[in-house]
Amino acid sequence: MGISLRGLEEVKTAGTVFIELYTSVLPGFSKRRFEQISGADIRAVARRELEEESGKIILEAARKGKAVLLVPGDPMIATTHIALRIEAKKRGIGSRVVHGASVLSAAIGLSGLHNYKFGKSVTIPFPEDTTSETPHAVIAQNKRAGLHTLCLLDIKAEERRYLGIREGLESLLRADAKAKDGAVTASTLSVGIARAGSESPTVKAGFVRDLLSFDFGGPPYSLVFPGRLHFMEAEALIVLAGAPEELRMVAK
Amino acid sequence: MGISLRGLEEVKTAGTVFIELYTSVLPGFSKRRFEQISGADIRAVARRELEEESGKIILEAARKGKAVLLVPGDPMIATTHIALRIEAKKRGIGSRVVHGASVLSAAIGLSGLHNYKFGKSVTIPFPEDTTSETPHAVIAQNKRAGLHTLCLLDIKAEERRYLGIREGLESLLRADAKAKDGAVTASTLSVGIARAGSESPTVKAGFVRDLLSFDFGGPPYSLVFPGRLHFMEAEALIVLAGAPEELRMVAK
Repeated sequence: MGISLRGLEEVKTAGTVFIELYTSVLPGFSKRRFEQISGADIRAVARRELEEESGKIILEAARKGKAVLLVPGDPMIATTHIALRIEAKKRGIGSRVVHGASVLSAAIGLSGLHNYKFGKSVTIPFPEDTTSETPHAVIAQNKRAGLHTLCLLDIKAEERRYLGIREGLESLLRADAKAKDGAVTASTLSVGIARAGSESPTVKAGFVRDLLSFDFGGPPYSLVFPGRLHFMEAEALIVLAGAPEELRMVAK
Repeated sequence: MGISLRGLEEVKTAGTVFIELYTSVLPGFSKRRFEQISGADIRAVARRELEEESGKIILEAARKGKAVLLVPGDPMIATTHIALRIEAKKRGIGSRVVHGASVLSAAIGLSGLHNYKFGKSVTIPFPEDTTSETPHAVIAQNKRAGLHTLCLLDIKAEERRYLGIREGLESLLRADAKAKDGAVTASTLSVGIARAGSESPTVKAGFVRDLLSFDFGGPPYSLVFPGRLHFMEAEALIVLAGAPEELRMVAK
């Protein structure tokens, strides 16, 4: 269980406990098992209740006593949770955040790359969804500045759909064929990460052509595109993530 | 306690437990209290043992049984911890990471700003230390791209020295006087955050001239410099962090 002792204490002393499981996914999490550990009765909230109804059900419970909303990862990284805090404050309801492990720092740490060399991060959407910015452009822009890029692969938790690493890479290759700037080609170095933050993550560094057919196991997935590599970062990719030895030649 | 249930389980089933408390600081953490909770005898490791001696003491314990190294925040964000994992792998010793809450996602979440709009992050050093890149230049570069910047204020945990928000801002103002690009002036919007990730963080958004004299309480500290603001981000800064109402006018 990734929840902290402090988080568990808040659950045990709450009047009402809610859980939101659609902004992200927790591999191996069992609501029933967590109810046994915490002794709490937990009510799952739907996207509609949080987004269209502005979390009314939670705010009403919070008027009567302590209400806890459990979320996957670090709260406040999803805009939905920030909106709920704003709404609470406007109604005069106090709130506090118990932080948790986030896919952001987990994936960066598992990649072995230095966190202060990451530029803007981006989500790779499902092919049928459009976004205002293309992940390919973000990777290209970071690379020009020598920076790494963390890409989260989109999930639709309610439909149990997770964009796979192969699909994510194919989408970037298609974008590269249009942009023609070579930011993501078959011979680009990349790091695929599955289940970052869980007990059994898979991390594999290699060229895009090799990652396309690598079996990463279950979701969710992330991709990291390295910018300029420090020699210690190259060493980490080789030793910890199975990157090709020739990487030592390009690092500084 | 910010440790996860899974982390606690690893401590309870370990043969030897070490703790490293110099790469970061945990406000309110008591080693003795944690020893009572976990039933483990915990040995603090010094910077020298991890860095000059490559963690030999931990790796030798890991040859005999399960060894756990507790670190503040999310492990693998500090290069020291990555180096230890590489060293273990080279000696044929398996390792796994139990993730924790990181100041990176905690500070971003507390600021109420959208995580995917953050560019490269940077550490503001003590005035007597020199760094290869200037934090001011990072902020200026991110701003030109419309991106937010997370600045961690340096700590020297062994000497109990923490760069304060006032000192950090003054250092940026001096850099701005040289760079003359106006990236950080007295009327620049900024968010000061103290004790991100702890039970009692302080978050205050305002103009640099106001933050200079604001009392943030105990360390450690971070600063966020917003780039272009979405109207929901402006709303979060006003409602959750006490930013001036006029911010609504500049957001989109």
